[in-house]
Amino acid sequence: MHISKFVTPEIIFGDGAVDQVGESCRRLGAQKVLIVCDDGVMHANWGEKVVKNCQDANLACTVFSDITSNPKDKEVHRGVKVYLDNECDAVVGVGGGSALDAAKAIAIIATNGGNIHDYEGVDKIDLPLPPLVMVSTTAGSGSEVSQFSIIVDTGLKKKLTIVSKSLIPDIAIVDPITLSTKDAALTASTGLDVLTHAIEAYVSVAATPLTDVQAKNAISLVSEYLRPSVASTSNKEAKNAMAMASLQAGLAFSNAILGAVHAMSHAIGGRFSLEHGEINAVLLPYVMEYNLLAAPKQFAVMAEMMGENINGLTAMEAGKKAISYVRKLARDIGTPTTLSAMGLDESAIPVMSQIAIKDACMITNPRDVTIRDVEELFRLAL
Amino acid sequence: MHISKFVTPEIIFGDGAVDQVGESCRRLGAQKVLIVCDDGVMHANWGEKVVKNCQDANLACTVFSDITSNPKDKEVHRGVKVYLDNECDAVVGVGGGSALDAAKAIAIIATNGGNIHDYEGVDKIDLPLPPLVMVSTTAGSGSEVSQFSIIVDTGLKKKLTIVSKSLIPDIAIVDPITLSTKDAALTASTGLDVLTHAIEAYVSVAATPLTDVQAKNAISLVSEYLRPSVASTSNKEAKNAMAMASLQAGLAFSNAILGAVHAMSHAIGGRFSLEHGEINAVLLPYVMEYNLLAAPKQFAVMAEMMGENINGLTAMEAGKKAISYVRKLARDIGTPTTLSAMGLDESAIPVMSQIAIKDACMITNPRDVTIRDVEELFRLAL
Repeated sequence: MHISKFVTPEIIFGDGAVDQVGESCRRLGAQKVLIVCDDGVMHANWGEKVVKNCQDANLACTVFSDITSNPKDKEVHRGVKVYLDNECDAVVGVGGGSALDAAKAIAIIATNGGNIHDYEGVDKIDLPLPPLVMVSTTAGSGSEVSQFSIIVDTGLKKKLTIVSKSLIPDIAIVDPITLSTKDAALTASTGLDVLTHAIEAYVSVAATPLTDVQAKNAISLVSEYLRPSVASTSNKEAKNAMAMASLQAGLAFSNAILGAVHAMSHAIGGRFSLEHGEINAVLLPYVMEYNLLAAPKQFAVMAEMMGENINGLTAMEAGKKAISYVRKLARDIGTPTTLSAMGLDESAIPVMSQIAIKDACMITNPRDVTIRDVEELFRLAL
Repeated sequence: MHISKFVTPEIIFGDGAVDQVGESCRRLGAQKVLIVCDDGVMHANWGEKVVKNCQDANLACTVFSDITSNPKDKEVHRGVKVYLDNECDAVVGVGGGSALDAAKAIAIIATNGGNIHDYEGVDKIDLPLPPLVMVSTTAGSGSEVSQFSIIVDTGLKKKLTIVSKSLIPDIAIVDPITLSTKDAALTASTGLDVLTHAIEAYVSVAATPLTDVQAKNAISLVSEYLRPSVASTSNKEAKNAMAMASLQAGLAFSNAILGAVHAMSHAIGGRFSLEHGEINAVLLPYVMEYNLLAAPKQFAVMAEMMGENINGLTAMEAGKKAISYVRKLARDIGTPTTLSAMGLDESAIPVMSQIAIKDACMITNPRDVTIRDVEELFRLAL
């Protein structure tokens, strides 16, 4: 057995947890915080709520909300300027993966200087980051607990995958109430992103017993609660369960890393302004079919976690049930099932494949992947 | 749903993990470390190994091994003197719960001053502790990940239960290889301590979904692997599984706290030099019988985790199977089944009951407990 490491932030979970953001910053010694959020968060008033809470805790607050979905290098650099101009000493991210990843990227440069492109890859961050508090408002990215930040390089039209223990926030705040402002389509796509995190972490070559329990529980929660969560904004039990699933999938993939779905999804998201969760939803069953050969036993366990009856089946037969389950789930909640339905065609496949094969997430995919394999997978998913 | 917090140290787990102790201290900025361990650890050469590894990392090392089982206030104060005399700046604990709890207690006073008695109870520690690295060599205490330190007040003949997030180490190192030097009796009693942690955390009134996954997995690992681990010092699969069970039970109880077994066990351990794991082994089934009324559903889940067939049973019926399972397990591995077999009699019950009822662990017991109830439980277990 190899040595496994498991790192998590302090986690504050539950209805009303968002009200602890100010006190959390104070505990970390902050006095002037940069609050990074996107427009959706501001519209849903979560941004305002966080600002108010921080001000009540006697913190000076500057809001930076110039962030788009799939956050860009230029946005990060603008955020750094705002951080420095206002002499901030801590970063609070509020929102989904885009806002949280941007907040982390701003924090990197705030203390390490340079350009966000300098930090692509694994363990490229030398100096400690300012205190980081992340408030997750979508059950999806897991960024609130992860050692990842994904930023678009607008010049090279690719996503930079930045991986470092320094990116694990000090405190992660997960408040299921914030999920009540997500519409059905976003609930569906971010929910399948959670499932993708859990599945890729569970079959990752870097999986450990500590990540396995989190991944398995996340798979079982998504299987039971994603459909009712998509069906109703006010089903509190489902929102709580999906918030927990997202958190546990995040703990799993932050420590076990991901696989080919994310490597390929980053390659698409760097070129086309498409939603990360929807891309993953399309790619997941194809990559699972490809990976089944590498991990039939784990696939069988996943089928069981999804509630499938695997009595008397071989691991390969049971594993196939996990794949068909994912297809059924995607159909039920209405996420796209082909890349062409999202506007992609053949032409971008060669360049996207070259980028995907070099993504940090590809290293931990359980089955070896050549560039021909990636091209073929993209073609199957078209 | 209330708000739940979940805090863990960085965890380094696996064969050979003990070789990362020096580098771990360095990462935390240490230069002169106090290494706290007990005689057993020194005899098994784990203490020497840790010293060597720290010296190789250019750390000045002072060893303090004047620690007994159920560590005493006086030993802690002597350790503090050694820490200060040698101008140490970090504490490394190596061993089972006694050494690790003593190491934490020394760290408290090293920066907060005063007397260890000042810190009894919850959240009494104001100033940050020096960097803390814990190397666990028994699959038992969970102290390497927990916010607990238990120290004997030799004057009042009771155990001080100290609970604070400050006591969560910075880095926990768990190396299953170290378990190969434990004899069968110690493997059995520390293994039942693990089971007690998991069960008390699972039915605690402060349990959360994040602690539940850890507790359930620990119960299932103990049920599968404790017997073979007691049977053989060289069964690596069993040692790995028990090390993981101990770690996960520790994560569960550190965040969900414990219950009446530990409250009563602390009361005994403060007066009589008996082994904590053995006391728990005796008390556990009696307290489970008492608590069943409060949490039949959780007891039924535990029975399932233990591999019992609960098909068609009510929660109460299934829950009883969890209790009988614990009795069978204890019989198989030969831990004591009565307090009288350990040398206790009726006479200490009144005073022990008064102490137990005020222990911090009693607060989270799922069923209300009066002093009469505690007396009756002690009597049943005699």
